[in-house]
Amino acid sequence: MIEIRKPILVEKAVELVINHTFTGQSEIISIEACDGRRLAEPLIARNDVPSFNKSPYDGFALRSVDTLDASLDHPVQFEVIEHIGAGQVPKKKLEAGQATRIMTGAQIPDGADCVAMFEVCQSVETEEKPIIRLKRKMEKGQNIIELGSEVKEGEVLVEAGEKINPGVKALLATFGYDKVAVAKRPRVGIIATGTELLNVDEPLEPGKIRNSNAHMIASQVTRAGADYIYFGKLKDELETSYQTISEALKQVDVLITTGGVSVGDWDLLPDIYEKLGAEVLFNKLAMRPGSVTTVAVKENKLLFGLSGNPSACYVGFELFVHPIIQAALFNKRPFHKRVKAMMMDNFPKPNPFSRFVRSYISYEEDRLKVHLAGVDKSNVVTSLSSANALMILPGGTRGYKAGDMVNVLLLENDEGQAAFLPIVKE
Amino acid sequence: MIEIRKPILVEKAVELVINHTFTGQSEIISIEACDGRRLAEPLIARNDVPSFNKSPYDGFALRSVDTLDASLDHPVQFEVIEHIGAGQVPKKKLEAGQATRIMTGAQIPDGADCVAMFEVCQSVETEEKPIIRLKRKMEKGQNIIELGSEVKEGEVLVEAGEKINPGVKALLATFGYDKVAVAKRPRVGIIATGTELLNVDEPLEPGKIRNSNAHMIASQVTRAGADYIYFGKLKDELETSYQTISEALKQVDVLITTGGVSVGDWDLLPDIYEKLGAEVLFNKLAMRPGSVTTVAVKENKLLFGLSGNPSACYVGFELFVHPIIQAALFNKRPFHKRVKAMMMDNFPKPNPFSRFVRSYISYEEDRLKVHLAGVDKSNVVTSLSSANALMILPGGTRGYKAGDMVNVLLLENDEGQAAFLPIVKE
Repeated sequence: MIEIRKPILVEKAVELVINHTFTGQSEIISIEACDGRRLAEPLIARNDVPSFNKSPYDGFALRSVDTLDASLDHPVQFEVIEHIGAGQVPKKKLEAGQATRIMTGAQIPDGADCVAMFEVCQSVETEEKPIIRLKRKMEKGQNIIELGSEVKEGEVLVEAGEKINPGVKALLATFGYDKVAVAKRPRVGIIATGTELLNVDEPLEPGKIRNSNAHMIASQVTRAGADYIYFGKLKDELETSYQTISEALKQVDVLITTGGVSVGDWDLLPDIYEKLGAEVLFNKLAMRPGSVTTVAVKENKLLFGLSGNPSACYVGFELFVHPIIQAALFNKRPFHKRVKAMMMDNFPKPNPFSRFVRSYISYEEDRLKVHLAGVDKSNVVTSLSSANALMILPGGTRGYKAGDMVNVLLLENDEGQAAFLPIVKE
Repeated sequence: MIEIRKPILVEKAVELVINHTFTGQSEIISIEACDGRRLAEPLIARNDVPSFNKSPYDGFALRSVDTLDASLDHPVQFEVIEHIGAGQVPKKKLEAGQATRIMTGAQIPDGADCVAMFEVCQSVETEEKPIIRLKRKMEKGQNIIELGSEVKEGEVLVEAGEKINPGVKALLATFGYDKVAVAKRPRVGIIATGTELLNVDEPLEPGKIRNSNAHMIASQVTRAGADYIYFGKLKDELETSYQTISEALKQVDVLITTGGVSVGDWDLLPDIYEKLGAEVLFNKLAMRPGSVTTVAVKENKLLFGLSGNPSACYVGFELFVHPIIQAALFNKRPFHKRVKAMMMDNFPKPNPFSRFVRSYISYEEDRLKVHLAGVDKSNVVTSLSSANALMILPGGTRGYKAGDMVNVLLLENDEGQAAFLPIVKE
């Protein structure tokens, strides 16, 4: 009475999908708009930093050679010939016995080779000209930040594929990148299927539910750094569904559908993949939830057939769609970061298949702890709201209990990981 | 020769600032635009979930009373009178010996009180009408998700102040929130000061640097969830600076300036605060970097005078401005999450003052490790690019070494913390 599908391992499924990575595009945008985007090219220093010899303190620039005889008992005296702040250019070259009053960040005048901080100088009131006295020897180069000592022109400062955070943005500004080459956001199509679905602004009707998966997936697409195009929801009718999916596929880089992938009487996606001539990479996974998650390829474009069940849909996105988007954004670590953590709840039910359980992370001292999201409310919908991680519980003959160490995928961490690690029981 | 300021402790400074929390506003936006925003009101279930008795499987809905005599040797037989999928409404009420073929998510027909999965039913081919046989007893309520069993109408599902992630968005959709009340993004004004500053698109000139702090702060403001208005950069001239700052203050909720807060000859902010009649909360901190960070209040609006030094500017924002923005976004945990981690680098130089060092987090098994950002490049600018944390090194007579346990503030973690914890040496 039901079609028999052969389940494959999650690791194998992830590999099949990532083999169909599509080539990301780049685009040039204004520095103002670049927050959170990923660099399409390495960030290279376009000039030395600093680009001139510079004072790190407020003080007096002078010639160290003039301080050779200075001591507590024998202060040496300097005539202050100029007064410059940051951004001002010194006009006078120092001669023997001369000093320039200089502020933090200002350019060291010619002739000077050190800066004596205010705190070590004594100002002398005279009628004619400002005089300072210094009771200690200075070394050549003391308190001078030399040209190019922080960054050399041509140095690679940030690799392509890295995310632009406030620090990277500061670097872009420092080196005059008013335009920035970033990875173009992939276009991800979203289609919800199911006769039972109402729009979010429609009143409830008997037998129907509001379409929450499309909104959830749109939010996951956004979090992953892509743009989404929502093509609406489809009733379970083959011909119109085929038409919509076929047209949508032309406009996007990848297409996500929710629902219709199981073996129910109105689950149409299998027929649609066939009608499209798409190659089905897999349609059954040895995992829970989301065992019916299906991925197909049509002319190098991936079609992700996620389950209509909200948890399965959520997990399917993070395992399979997220890394494909990251790869197209030039991220060299496209998979979610995997860490270990101690389980803080029991999960007693044994399962032959690996489970990916929505969870959240907490910290105790320097240790990571992981909690079932919504454990006190056992329902499928609300448990998603606190999730920031997926606990990996490998399949086996017994359940899990508080205190067990488990692997966890972090969903809101930018570090990422170069490979999807095998699911092995600890 | 220099003005003497009395340094205060960071904890005290944070307290002085957070006492001037301003009242956040809320606004109504479309569900499509709500990603990453914070809820202004609790998310309340507007209906029961499910809103009707529902099948969790593909199978046959029937009356458990009809299965009382069923056994392996004695199958009971049912006439299948209807066939319904998710979203379809059953039209027929079941009588004795009748069943309805039903799909996952579909509404249970009247009369039925359980669902037998396909796998346990045997289909019988007849000429007239579809028949199934069942060889086991069913219990009342078996395989039925009852109305309201997951969520009850009126339940608070997510508290005000929480961030809208994909899971929260799914809940909003489920309960028909096509419009969402979210915290309005505070308006943060940014002004860079310093005659040495060039715009990012200007070529370098002797003695000058490009204005990177304004871009960095704009990015930090965005990351914190606020909007920024950039009022440009100011030369170190009192009258024009006063005018610009005075006008800008009228247009924003808080105003950030960078530079000009120290005691250099062209550091004008102290004079400007005086001319504005602003109350200076503090102008000297027992911390590094950023000891000259100044915060003033004018008519209940906070003026943050951050240092012109990039690291000090960055740290000052995260310690003082970030929590004020979070509080205005109704976040009940407005401070950065603090965790412990093992230091992976040496920081040998002792310092009498507490240091906040730009760092990044890594994981080893379930343990947190913390690294100095840009330790291999000791310059101030590039070290910001990999930072996602601030290591807290309390002041003292000796330095720190790899293996020491230290406190760390996580900059890219949404969990937050209700209070700023005291800086004590471990």
